[in-house]
Amino acid sequence: MTEPFDAVDVIRAQRDKTGLSEDALRWMIDAYTREYVTDAQMSAFAMAVLLNGMSRDEIRVMTDAMIASGERMSFAGLGKHTVDKHSTGGVGDKITLPLAPLVASFGVAVPQLSGRGLGHTGGTLDKLESIPGWRAALSNDEMRDQLRDLGAVICAAGSGLAPADKRLYALRDVTGTVEAVPLIASSIMSKKIAEGTDALVLDVKVGSGAFMHDLERARELARTMVALGTDSGVSTTALITDMNTPLGRAVGNANEVRESIEVLAGGGPADVVELTVALAREMLALAGQPDADVEAALHNGRAMDVWRAMIRAQGGDPDAELPTPRETHTVTAAASGVLTRLDAWAVGIAAWRLGAGRARPQDRVVHAAGIELHVKPGDSVVAGQPLLTLGADDASRLPRALEALENAYSIGESTEPRSIIVERITA
Amino acid sequence: MTEPFDAVDVIRAQRDKTGLSEDALRWMIDAYTREYVTDAQMSAFAMAVLLNGMSRDEIRVMTDAMIASGERMSFAGLGKHTVDKHSTGGVGDKITLPLAPLVASFGVAVPQLSGRGLGHTGGTLDKLESIPGWRAALSNDEMRDQLRDLGAVICAAGSGLAPADKRLYALRDVTGTVEAVPLIASSIMSKKIAEGTDALVLDVKVGSGAFMHDLERARELARTMVALGTDSGVSTTALITDMNTPLGRAVGNANEVRESIEVLAGGGPADVVELTVALAREMLALAGQPDADVEAALHNGRAMDVWRAMIRAQGGDPDAELPTPRETHTVTAAASGVLTRLDAWAVGIAAWRLGAGRARPQDRVVHAAGIELHVKPGDSVVAGQPLLTLGADDASRLPRALEALENAYSIGESTEPRSIIVERITA
Repeated sequence: MTEPFDAVDVIRAQRDKTGLSEDALRWMIDAYTREYVTDAQMSAFAMAVLLNGMSRDEIRVMTDAMIASGERMSFAGLGKHTVDKHSTGGVGDKITLPLAPLVASFGVAVPQLSGRGLGHTGGTLDKLESIPGWRAALSNDEMRDQLRDLGAVICAAGSGLAPADKRLYALRDVTGTVEAVPLIASSIMSKKIAEGTDALVLDVKVGSGAFMHDLERARELARTMVALGTDSGVSTTALITDMNTPLGRAVGNANEVRESIEVLAGGGPADVVELTVALAREMLALAGQPDADVEAALHNGRAMDVWRAMIRAQGGDPDAELPTPRETHTVTAAASGVLTRLDAWAVGIAAWRLGAGRARPQDRVVHAAGIELHVKPGDSVVAGQPLLTLGADDASRLPRALEALENAYSIGESTEPRSIIVERITA
Repeated sequence: MTEPFDAVDVIRAQRDKTGLSEDALRWMIDAYTREYVTDAQMSAFAMAVLLNGMSRDEIRVMTDAMIASGERMSFAGLGKHTVDKHSTGGVGDKITLPLAPLVASFGVAVPQLSGRGLGHTGGTLDKLESIPGWRAALSNDEMRDQLRDLGAVICAAGSGLAPADKRLYALRDVTGTVEAVPLIASSIMSKKIAEGTDALVLDVKVGSGAFMHDLERARELARTMVALGTDSGVSTTALITDMNTPLGRAVGNANEVRESIEVLAGGGPADVVELTVALAREMLALAGQPDADVEAALHNGRAMDVWRAMIRAQGGDPDAELPTPRETHTVTAAASGVLTRLDAWAVGIAAWRLGAGRARPQDRVVHAAGIELHVKPGDSVVAGQPLLTLGADDASRLPRALEALENAYSIGESTEPRSIIVERITA
């Protein structure tokens, strides 16, 4: 077969911004999926996208092309509204765990196709795999049945959705081309649109522990994704939320499951509850239930009931004991005052080095490893008081984790209370 | 062995211009040579260099690192000045063929390590291989002996010189990262400095048939290379020369050898003679002979004697008949007037499609294929008069070559005469 385009011409058009035709861009993604366009060619293209940007139209075409590279799912016929949530990734971000059963407890279907962690942010599947017996892999039919019966499912995305994105994402990770709005937006939205959800709420993180370090870029990403979703018939809302501080008091895997269960039992840290409730309200509003009493479902056990059924349906024992670390080390405050800063990125790197995350896709995570935060910004501390406790299965992991935590926090005189919700973006 | 740097960090530093340390840049080139850094990583880096540029210091370090990736040669002990010439590549650029023996006829050693053509510009070795028996591959010792005995040698660069550049050049060719001044400058100069020449004259082409389409960029490239050479102890001068029109009347392989022999016999097209003489003067000036009577050596047969000896020394028969094309097709003028434009790029592409060049490194060129120009810009033409003749070994190659020539020339009322030498750049 003769190819209608040449990869070098397509790269040049993006490099020089001389105009990339819709057909050329579609061909580039398709030819990359077929492995006609090489990794080296695609990484040069990705770098040109990162440095030169793309128009909204180009991002839409690229997203479409990535959807077209694989299968499309549909949840029509379930007799329920389908609402999905996606977070751009942060440290201590276990929100999916309490959120999916909470929203499902109102009769809405919540399909959470999730991933594993790579780098300093954890993966939802890694966290759930702390629960003995729980399995992430479901067939499309199993997923559909569980959505119909329980409403909530958190499972691994099959390999059929947007395979072009799968290859491109792995490439970006090793070529310094992760932080490009057009590439992040098309990567996330191609999978969500191909999945066939009716509505989507995006949690776009901003801050030291997020891909987007400044509000302007986070806003650009949120607006781009809301427009992409809306254009494809998926009702989409985005919340921009703070990721300068880890979410909650647990960063790791098993400890994050434990904290999620506390939230489902009506307790848990204030910031995790605030964000879970805010996202649940957005999701339920898109599903036609703007006045749902979300807090009540956390306090009266309805959300917990769905959680237990959901874990059980995927082979897990909701009452099983979760693993705890063999070795711990507590860091104490060097001075008295108010904790003014606890850096999400540093805590994420430390937890990763403790074994909670993986350096290469084939690595295994240590479910018991992680960090407990005893104080959060705004709390008063006294010199010598425990600030955080590191946990690992092997003491040799502690020194490099502690190294990451040097300069990770500040103690001062006072700090302004900050809301975790920074901004709301709608179509 | 633990690597001291991470490729993603190096790519990011170049991408965000946060400062690339000398050690990091050296490591990147070395690790690429060792195949630890992948093609995909290097192509993202190359695109970031193309779009963000590099400081003079960074270009110097990169050039140094490419030299360090291989062997260094030395011509010390020959008892002669060594002067090399390098052209950035153009259409009909056969200047090396008459120039090397011409300069050598003054007792100067001229080592011309040359390449093969890829894309629309031909390669010096491809042209010379039109001569039956002539061989491009010489050992370092054979090259040295020929330089001592005859002064002139045109041969293939061994694989030992700047192997990092060899790998990087092939990668750039397929990833849209050829046209970056830091990459072009370090590629050319690493080989020239590693070769160990005393002096170097650069022919930096500007125009439609060159890598550099505008004077400002050609000037930047010339200045960068002159500075790199000077800093490394190689006396370097650059001429910026016009490449909007093909050089001479022959574009191809065998026909360019024929034209070169005409020049060595005291004839030949005015532009080829003008550029050969200008470059010879620059080379001889750097070798301490600023007053050499260059034209005399073309008319009195001294340059021709060196040519014949040089061809014979490499197994070629200087009296052998050169191949001619089996099929020809002549394009005639559609109107009367003055030829105001004859586009080098279009003619280069047409010759390439006729078989004079190769699309992939493993392809063979057709030595007889090419184009004869019957008129040059400034010449008067009458409707119906032959403009150019295409030659190929296979008539099926003609249609696509003719396609490339649509809009390749203009006939108007008059045109300003233009000198081929646009500018001279010295340290």
